[in-house]
Amino acid sequence: MNSTCYLNKEYLYKDYDKKLDFEGVEGERLAHRLSKIAEIGLTKEGGANRPGYSEEEREAKNIVRKWMEGLGVTVQEDAAGNIIGKFLGKRSKLPSIMTGSHIDTVPNGGHFDGVLGVLTALEVIESWKKQNYIPDRSIELVIFSDEEGTRFNTGFTGSQAMMGDLNIKEISNLRDKTGLTFKEVIKKNNLSISKFNNAERNKSEIAAFVELHIEQGRQLEKFKQPVGIVSGISGQNIIEFSFFGIAEHAGNTPMDDRQDALVAASEFVQAVEKLPRQVSNSAVATIGQLRPYPNGVNVIPGRVDLSVDIRDIKKTNINELTNLILNKANNISHERNIVVKWEETLNVNPVSIEKEIQEIQALSLQKHQIKPFHIPSGAGHDAMSLGKYLPVSMFFVRCRDGISHNPREWTNLNDCIYGVHILKDFLERFPTRI
Amino acid sequence: MNSTCYLNKEYLYKDYDKKLDFEGVEGERLAHRLSKIAEIGLTKEGGANRPGYSEEEREAKNIVRKWMEGLGVTVQEDAAGNIIGKFLGKRSKLPSIMTGSHIDTVPNGGHFDGVLGVLTALEVIESWKKQNYIPDRSIELVIFSDEEGTRFNTGFTGSQAMMGDLNIKEISNLRDKTGLTFKEVIKKNNLSISKFNNAERNKSEIAAFVELHIEQGRQLEKFKQPVGIVSGISGQNIIEFSFFGIAEHAGNTPMDDRQDALVAASEFVQAVEKLPRQVSNSAVATIGQLRPYPNGVNVIPGRVDLSVDIRDIKKTNINELTNLILNKANNISHERNIVVKWEETLNVNPVSIEKEIQEIQALSLQKHQIKPFHIPSGAGHDAMSLGKYLPVSMFFVRCRDGISHNPREWTNLNDCIYGVHILKDFLERFPTRI
Repeated sequence: MNSTCYLNKEYLYKDYDKKLDFEGVEGERLAHRLSKIAEIGLTKEGGANRPGYSEEEREAKNIVRKWMEGLGVTVQEDAAGNIIGKFLGKRSKLPSIMTGSHIDTVPNGGHFDGVLGVLTALEVIESWKKQNYIPDRSIELVIFSDEEGTRFNTGFTGSQAMMGDLNIKEISNLRDKTGLTFKEVIKKNNLSISKFNNAERNKSEIAAFVELHIEQGRQLEKFKQPVGIVSGISGQNIIEFSFFGIAEHAGNTPMDDRQDALVAASEFVQAVEKLPRQVSNSAVATIGQLRPYPNGVNVIPGRVDLSVDIRDIKKTNINELTNLILNKANNISHERNIVVKWEETLNVNPVSIEKEIQEIQALSLQKHQIKPFHIPSGAGHDAMSLGKYLPVSMFFVRCRDGISHNPREWTNLNDCIYGVHILKDFLERFPTRI
Repeated sequence: MNSTCYLNKEYLYKDYDKKLDFEGVEGERLAHRLSKIAEIGLTKEGGANRPGYSEEEREAKNIVRKWMEGLGVTVQEDAAGNIIGKFLGKRSKLPSIMTGSHIDTVPNGGHFDGVLGVLTALEVIESWKKQNYIPDRSIELVIFSDEEGTRFNTGFTGSQAMMGDLNIKEISNLRDKTGLTFKEVIKKNNLSISKFNNAERNKSEIAAFVELHIEQGRQLEKFKQPVGIVSGISGQNIIEFSFFGIAEHAGNTPMDDRQDALVAASEFVQAVEKLPRQVSNSAVATIGQLRPYPNGVNVIPGRVDLSVDIRDIKKTNINELTNLILNKANNISHERNIVVKWEETLNVNPVSIEKEIQEIQALSLQKHQIKPFHIPSGAGHDAMSLGKYLPVSMFFVRCRDGISHNPREWTNLNDCIYGVHILKDFLERFPTRI
């Protein structure tokens, strides 16, 4: 194992509180498995590199598959490469409860994003085996393919295929940086474009989906919570704006005679930052990309392009915030005699999480003396794909400094094991209520 | 001649007011010469491409040299490639008056920047020859080499060499885009690095320098003035700032928990735009370059780099404005908990133009029924190099829409000829006063 990677079993395990080993759950086993997966696609910087449908993703899927089979779980792979292990419940004819996440990563990403959702679910099954516990309904442990989608600028490939929402024609000819098409990459995975849509499940076979994931934010850390309940998965609008002024000589144009697109865009940035609070506590708006033209030291910017990323867990809030932002752009355009154009380039609906399910999640936290703490998920997850059709829920596990998609991504083993216990309780508690 | 270039003699001449042909000045001749030079290095877009020390600059120099020699002017080339024609005055032992400009261009530049200062001076000598007028002092008509300096990212090469201010060692190994060094390019021009410094003139041989140039701004157009008097040549500070926040996920970081470097930088852009008015009417500050990092749609900017270009014709004003800007950066840093770093990357002193000379310039404008109109020059010119040691003055000629460094750069022939008459009067009037 590469010495620059500090995610190894010993390091994860060194501060572990062994009192958390109860009801068949073992911290050392999870530490071992996390470190085994971290070895696959390990980068020089100590990060993880397992693109969707790569050999590395395949290798990681195979290892987890073997661990599942070692527990007597029947494992199948669907036409989109999703790995599904079915742990039979007492009432195996009833729709099952699905849990899991993904095992692919962004380039040079972290060792917890996705993987933790898969391995905590596996640890739940381990503990049941140790305790000879049989759940009420069958539990399906899923590893979704290609959640990150960095390779082809897509995302949620496996989970969308399972829901019958993937437009396979649209993506099959996309090329990655090396020039390979999605179709070619799929073929190397012993999958085929023509059969890909067979991954679609009969939705009546699945009663609900629950996903555990690292928070990728700092709220749990800030409020000293190992695990939190996701109150909803944000929808997202992306709007790309262009502000048009006049590019002129920085030396020969007096201050009162300018139409500076960057000064106008800056007023917009200032305003956009204040607007989400007018709508809700969960609404956010971010200007992450901004580019002035011609971008010369001695030229007044004649044009600025920028993107606004708008999110909330309620569609009405997204619409309200979008309108406020567009109105602000209009006002600046009129007041400054600057032409402003915009285009919506993304519009994703939020996924709501039923209050009743969140109440059951709260019971699972309280069982382990953790105060129920609800936070929105601003990021997209496989649970979004399923949430369009099925009741879904998510647990977030605290993530150091909120850092993610980065080799420094880190979650304390104690927090991981709290995640196992809570997921376990939820999977035992929830099916009896539906 | 390329049909896409509309700078041809006929087009220039079509709206010409022939009443301006008096005292030996002829619009048609200037139109002819402007169009002849425009043919050299003509681009597809109709622009001019004559880099410093290129074959095109050399060809243009040679044509003007022949025109000068046709008038009986003795022409010499100095060790920096500057072309100097001396028109002997009555008192030829006295220090001469120098006039002229440059004939090189930026890539795909215009047909008036520089050239007009050379050809209007030549037209003055033509008119004197026609009228058998001999000026009091000798007049030196100079074509400075490589004013634009785009090729090696320098500038004012010829005029600095003439003043003994060129660090030839520093630039001789600079490379252009094709990989050629300055040294190699100079050699192709039959010049040599070792002799380059011989271009330095004994400053006591030159009493003063006057340069006519297009405005490269919109003030003369705005105030309906064909020609204006330059009140001073701006000095310039360039300061590069970096604002450091925290790059975080746009979805998972609530608005109240962000350290957004772009929001901080935008407050700075807004503030900087308002500060020059506190200092003087001529002060300007421009943020032309700005770049957020990582510049991703869904990432809160963790860092923003930007440049501030600060100019005024008085050094004290530049210093005062610089301090106001640095204080503002400091305040934003404290209030927003954003680290701000800066570095001054350029510091050029302004060149003042004596009030007494501007008064004489005013008489030359008034003689032709033009209201004296004083404007600062925000851009640098060869007059800056000479102004460090000698009394200098400049006339600006109106330039359509303020557009320069562009194929669309344009000055009406009537305005050009007003420039000739005013320069002529000044060269006749000024030497008797010193």
